Amino acid sequence: MNTLTVDLGARSYPIYIGQNLLTDPQLITPHVVAQQVMIVTNETVAPLYLDKVRAAYAQFNTHVVLLPDGEVYKTLESINRIFEQLLTQRYNRQATLVALGGGVIGDMTGFAAACYQRGIQFIQTPTTLLSQVDSSVGGKTGVNHPLGKNMIGAFHQPRCVVIDTDTLATLDDRQLSAGLAEVIKYGLINDPEFFSWLEAHADALLARDSNALAYAIARSCQDKAAIVAQDEHETSGTRALLNLGHTFGHAIETGSNYVGYLHGEAVAIGIHLAAQLSQHLGWLTLQEVERIKNLLQKVHLPVHIPAHISAEQMLALMQVDKKVQHGKVRLILLQGIGKSLLTEDYSAALLHKTLTEGYADLMER
Amino acid sequence: MNTLTVDLGARSYPIYIGQNLLTDPQLITPHVVAQQVMIVTNETVAPLYLDKVRAAYAQFNTHVVLLPDGEVYKTLESINRIFEQLLTQRYNRQATLVALGGGVIGDMTGFAAACYQRGIQFIQTPTTLLSQVDSSVGGKTGVNHPLGKNMIGAFHQPRCVVIDTDTLATLDDRQLSAGLAEVIKYGLINDPEFFSWLEAHADALLARDSNALAYAIARSCQDKAAIVAQDEHETSGTRALLNLGHTFGHAIETGSNYVGYLHGEAVAIGIHLAAQLSQHLGWLTLQEVERIKNLLQKVHLPVHIPAHISAEQMLALMQVDKKVQHGKVRLILLQGIGKSLLTEDYSAALLHKTLTEGYADLMER
Repeated sequence: MNTLTVDLGARSYPIYIGQNLLTDPQLITPHVVAQQVMIVTNETVAPLYLDKVRAAYAQFNTHVVLLPDGEVYKTLESINRIFEQLLTQRYNRQATLVALGGGVIGDMTGFAAACYQRGIQFIQTPTTLLSQVDSSVGGKTGVNHPLGKNMIGAFHQPRCVVIDTDTLATLDDRQLSAGLAEVIKYGLINDPEFFSWLEAHADALLARDSNALAYAIARSCQDKAAIVAQDEHETSGTRALLNLGHTFGHAIETGSNYVGYLHGEAVAIGIHLAAQLSQHLGWLTLQEVERIKNLLQKVHLPVHIPAHISAEQMLALMQVDKKVQHGKVRLILLQGIGKSLLTEDYSAALLHKTLTEGYADLMER
Repeated sequence: MNTLTVDLGARSYPIYIGQNLLTDPQLITPHVVAQQVMIVTNETVAPLYLDKVRAAYAQFNTHVVLLPDGEVYKTLESINRIFEQLLTQRYNRQATLVALGGGVIGDMTGFAAACYQRGIQFIQTPTTLLSQVDSSVGGKTGVNHPLGKNMIGAFHQPRCVVIDTDTLATLDDRQLSAGLAEVIKYGLINDPEFFSWLEAHADALLARDSNALAYAIARSCQDKAAIVAQDEHETSGTRALLNLGHTFGHAIETGSNYVGYLHGEAVAIGIHLAAQLSQHLGWLTLQEVERIKNLLQKVHLPVHIPAHISAEQMLALMQVDKKVQHGKVRLILLQGIGKSLLTEDYSAALLHKTLTEGYADLMER
């Protein structure tokens, strides 16, 4: 087992990465403050892991909230179902919530924990690659609003993150690829050596080589933890770098009503668009853009805007972004592989050109 | 104008108390970070003050959210209306919310500010005595759930609190009395001199003597700010003292579906019950209980449990309280006028006796 630490002073917490961790009561027991433990999961994950996880918490008084599966259910209504269960079972301020599932479950469980009685503890047990390398670490929690993704939420750090790499065995190929989009992101942000490693090990990752996956997860978590420790509440701009590809990606997700594209898939398209805009600005070479595109495609990720969203729609949807300041969307762009920056130093014309050219060629359409 | 400070390090903020403050742009301008300002108010307050307040923010780009009036609307649905407006108008992270109204508006506006894009700024402009002396100060924000009062929320401190005592001129007598319940509470918690002052000036307060009101508001805010500075997130038990009478009071509010009793009225009954239980425990004399009851009744507050809620219902509703620990409700009780403590050192039998005897005599029923 590999143990990393997210270094946030009094709110520091460990990330445990390894095999067979879900069933280990000794790992989680020190992080549960009192008897009440509510496990929040969904209909896809529950049949696979709920019994195991419940057994690991056997010494506590546990209850379960079972939510439907999917980004489309990441809403205030779902959060309210968690509140209803907590209140019906008379959970108090010493209670612990356990998120068992992917990023949607983790974000919602964390937000419910942030708001229930003005804040209770929670534990992240991410079961998808995407949530293991990204959303379970760093304390960003929240839900979507019909008018914008992740617009409602809180910063609320978990007590610990338990990443059982065995859970990846049951993950379908498409979800695995979606997770790799966020993994590739870390290489591009500030870890060029990792990017090269990913190019060399893409096949091993797709073949679910357990050593390769464990390494990619640990390095991603390490990269993320270092950034979060520098800028927990995204005030300095450093943490915003983690949103590489996300402003484009959120627009694609919202424009598709959260169906059709997984978060990681939308982010992959967004990363490619960010690279293309960077190239138009003269910051990236065509060769670098090709390297990025090739790696994304090698792990079976999409790189083009879906035909049903027009460039104008993309622009409008991108305006509803948390990084908008003084009316202009700040974007994460690249000045090299492993060199990212938050900037509004681009012209509307170049952004428009990038979006207009961001579709698959006419044959594909 | 009297300026107090809530001393919370980087989150410190001023409380301005005086006449004619609502219309003063100079007071609020330094606390607004960017152009977008959303004023949240209700249908009762808007006709009285909205134009004035909007004029004070004239140099900014303002919008308004108008909510229905009443505790029954302090819900997630109302919060969602604020989010809808913020998203429709494309408010960003530099935006400021302004709460214009009583405690319900302040609590909801603060909670919306806590959650919108994971946290934006807000300003409290309380227009009722109750919100001026209590809910606008200290950063407790939130909404009710059908299964429990104030169960969903966040700690989120405002940028400043603007208390214009002129607004009390339009407050109806019942609301004024309800506010005095919280004022009396501060005397009982730790300020016996203030309690005596209130006994001497009850008539002046009811007659809306402006000097008396300004003094009572400032002293209440000062007492509250001192407690909040010691224990911002209610972890040490000190801040819990501010809940004197509230566990009983919340049960009465929930048991009445938030209609029939104003918050301050329910708290007055709760304070009287806490005093009676304290007397049963031998901690207060009968004379002290009478002093408390007399002062509450002198300012026209109720002191008896409403007949439609049984003692058993009261007990059940009190179990859903944020101060429950290890299955037992911790209560704020009194060991003298101006000497309160958070304790679970009472027997179920004495609590039951207190509740059973807490009704008006049979003639009144």
